[in-house]
Amino acid sequence: MSIKIGIAGYGNLGRGVQLAISQNPDMELVGIFTRRNPKTLTPVLPCNVYSIDDCDAWKDKIDVMILCGGSATDLPEQGPAFAKLFHTVDSFDTHAKIPEYFAAVDSSAKASGHIGLISVGWDPGLFSLQRALFSSVLSCGETYTFWGKGVSQGHSDAIRRVEGVKRGVQYTIPIEEAVNRARSGENPALSTREKHLRECFVVAEEGADTAKIEKTICEMPNYFADYDTVVHFISEEEFEKDHQAIPHGGFVIRGGKTGADNKNRHVMEFSLKLDSNPEFTASVLVAYARAVYRLAQGGEIGAKTVLDIPFTLLSPKSPAELRAELL
Amino acid sequence: MSIKIGIAGYGNLGRGVQLAISQNPDMELVGIFTRRNPKTLTPVLPCNVYSIDDCDAWKDKIDVMILCGGSATDLPEQGPAFAKLFHTVDSFDTHAKIPEYFAAVDSSAKASGHIGLISVGWDPGLFSLQRALFSSVLSCGETYTFWGKGVSQGHSDAIRRVEGVKRGVQYTIPIEEAVNRARSGENPALSTREKHLRECFVVAEEGADTAKIEKTICEMPNYFADYDTVVHFISEEEFEKDHQAIPHGGFVIRGGKTGADNKNRHVMEFSLKLDSNPEFTASVLVAYARAVYRLAQGGEIGAKTVLDIPFTLLSPKSPAELRAELL
Repeated sequence: MSIKIGIAGYGNLGRGVQLAISQNPDMELVGIFTRRNPKTLTPVLPCNVYSIDDCDAWKDKIDVMILCGGSATDLPEQGPAFAKLFHTVDSFDTHAKIPEYFAAVDSSAKASGHIGLISVGWDPGLFSLQRALFSSVLSCGETYTFWGKGVSQGHSDAIRRVEGVKRGVQYTIPIEEAVNRARSGENPALSTREKHLRECFVVAEEGADTAKIEKTICEMPNYFADYDTVVHFISEEEFEKDHQAIPHGGFVIRGGKTGADNKNRHVMEFSLKLDSNPEFTASVLVAYARAVYRLAQGGEIGAKTVLDIPFTLLSPKSPAELRAELL
Repeated sequence: MSIKIGIAGYGNLGRGVQLAISQNPDMELVGIFTRRNPKTLTPVLPCNVYSIDDCDAWKDKIDVMILCGGSATDLPEQGPAFAKLFHTVDSFDTHAKIPEYFAAVDSSAKASGHIGLISVGWDPGLFSLQRALFSSVLSCGETYTFWGKGVSQGHSDAIRRVEGVKRGVQYTIPIEEAVNRARSGENPALSTREKHLRECFVVAEEGADTAKIEKTICEMPNYFADYDTVVHFISEEEFEKDHQAIPHGGFVIRGGKTGADNKNRHVMEFSLKLDSNPEFTASVLVAYARAVYRLAQGGEIGAKTVLDIPFTLLSPKSPAELRAELL
C-alpha cells in the first residue's frame, strides 16, 4: 500500500516534489492543489489538479500534504490551516520566526490530531541536523555555516526592486580562505565580510544609470552593506543563456577539542553541491513525508522538526534491512 | 540533577569516555569498572575504580553504563550481560555481525526492561546515519564510504602477527583521485584497490627476513591482498617518535540525480578528520548516553541503534532552545 501524497502550491518546489515522488515507488501522488484555476495548470508529469479551496473534500484521502508555498506570506497562513485537515510537511525557512511558526502549527495540529513537520529542507533542515549532531558530539568547539555557491532568492528579489533594474540574480559565494580556516580546526573568528562574497548579474533598463544601480545595491542595508559585493551588467541574451539554473550548496563545519589538556583536534564537515536547489529541497520534503506517515501511524500529533525524527523513519527500507546494510 | 554514568572497561576508549564526560556538565562519572585489580588502575582523572565483578551492586545507582570493551571477544559477551542490569551504550563495530548482536542485546534488554544502544561511534555510527540520510533523500544515486587517513587497529594487529615483526602499524589511506571521482557526482564504479591504499610501518626483529615479511603482509588474504600495499621498515626509535598517535577520519559521499530526465546532479558529503580515533568515538558514545537516559525516562526498552535516535535527544539544550538557535 503506497503513501498518498498531496501537493499544495505548484511553483519550482511543487514541481520538484512531483518529480521526487515519481522516484519513490512507495508513494503515490493523489493531486496538486492550486490557488490558480486548475484548468490553466500543466504539471510536468500527468496528474490531477484541484482548486485549493476544495481540499476539505480530500481530508481522509491523503496521508500527507506537502506544502510548497513560500515562507514570507503563504506558509504563516497555510501551515496552521492545512494542519487542521492533514498531516503536513513544509519548508518554512524564516529562521528568526521558527519558534512562533512552530507554536502556531503545533496548536492547530494538536487540536485536530495531526502532525505538522515544519522547516524541512537543507537550511533549515539537513544543515540544522548537522549543527545539532556536531555540537552534541564535540561539546567543546565552534560551528561554522557557509552557503553557496548559489542563487539567493531573497537577494535576487532585492536587486530586482532597485530602480532601473530589468532582471537580476545574486550568487552567494563562500570565500575559500575562510572555509579552509574553519576546516583547519583552529576555530578562527570570522566576520560576515570574511565568510561570503555577493556577486550580482544585472540587466539594466535602457538608459538606466548603472553607476547609481551599482551603488544602491552595494550599500543596501541588511542585504549587501556588510559584504563585499560585485555587480556585473550584462545583456538580456547573456542573462537568458547563463543565469537560468538555480544551483546552491554549502558547508557546515565544526572544529572541536578533546582529551587531556584539550590537545586533540577534530573536524566534522557536511557539505552539499546542488544543481537545483528546489529539486533537492523537494527530495528532502518527500523523504520526511514518509517519516510523517509512519509517525502518524504510531499515533503522534503536534508540530515537529527534523530534529525530532529518527532516520529509520526516512528510508523505504525496514529497520532490520538498514541495520544489516547501512549500519 | 546530572546523568550518572559508569564506564565498563578502561583502555583507550574508556579513557576517552572519562575525558569526554568531564566536558559535559550535565553528566557525572560514578565509577570505572575493570577486570583488572582495581588498585592497579590509575585513571587519567581522579575517579572511583571497582571490580567489574561487583557491578551488580550499582544496578540502581547508574543511569547509563558505557561499555568500552572490544568487539571481537568482550562485547559479544558483555553487551547482553550488562543489558540485564543497566541501560547501556557500546561501540560494537563488527559490521557483519550487527544483526546477531542486536538480537542478543535486544532479548536481554527487553527481558530486564533496559535499553541497549549498540554500534555507536563513527563507523558504524555517524557514517551509518549519513548513509541512511543520504540514500533516503537522493533515492536515485550511489553512496561511497572512504576511510582514513588513519590507523586501522585490525590491520595493525594482523601485521604484528607476522613472524619477524616486532612492532607495526597500518594506515588506511583514501586515494584522492577516487574521492574526487565520487565527489564529481558521476557515480563511477570504483574497485577496492582504486579506493584505498594501505601503508605499513614495521619494526623488524633483529636478523628477520624483511623481504619475506613484506611478501607475507602484501599477500595476506582479506587484509591486504586486494589492495596496493606499501611496507616501510623503520627503527624502533622512529616508530616511538612518529607512530604513537591514533588519527583517523573518512568520507561518506553520495551522488544523486533528480528532475525531468534526471538531468540535475547533487552531491552530499560528510567527512571527519580526527586527531584521536578513540577520543572522538568516546565523545560520540557520551552524547548518545544522554539520549539513552532520556529514552529510558520515556519508558522505552530493547536494543536500539543510532538510526532510532532523534537528534533532539543528543544535545544538552532543550528542544525549544535547539529550534531557536540551531534550526
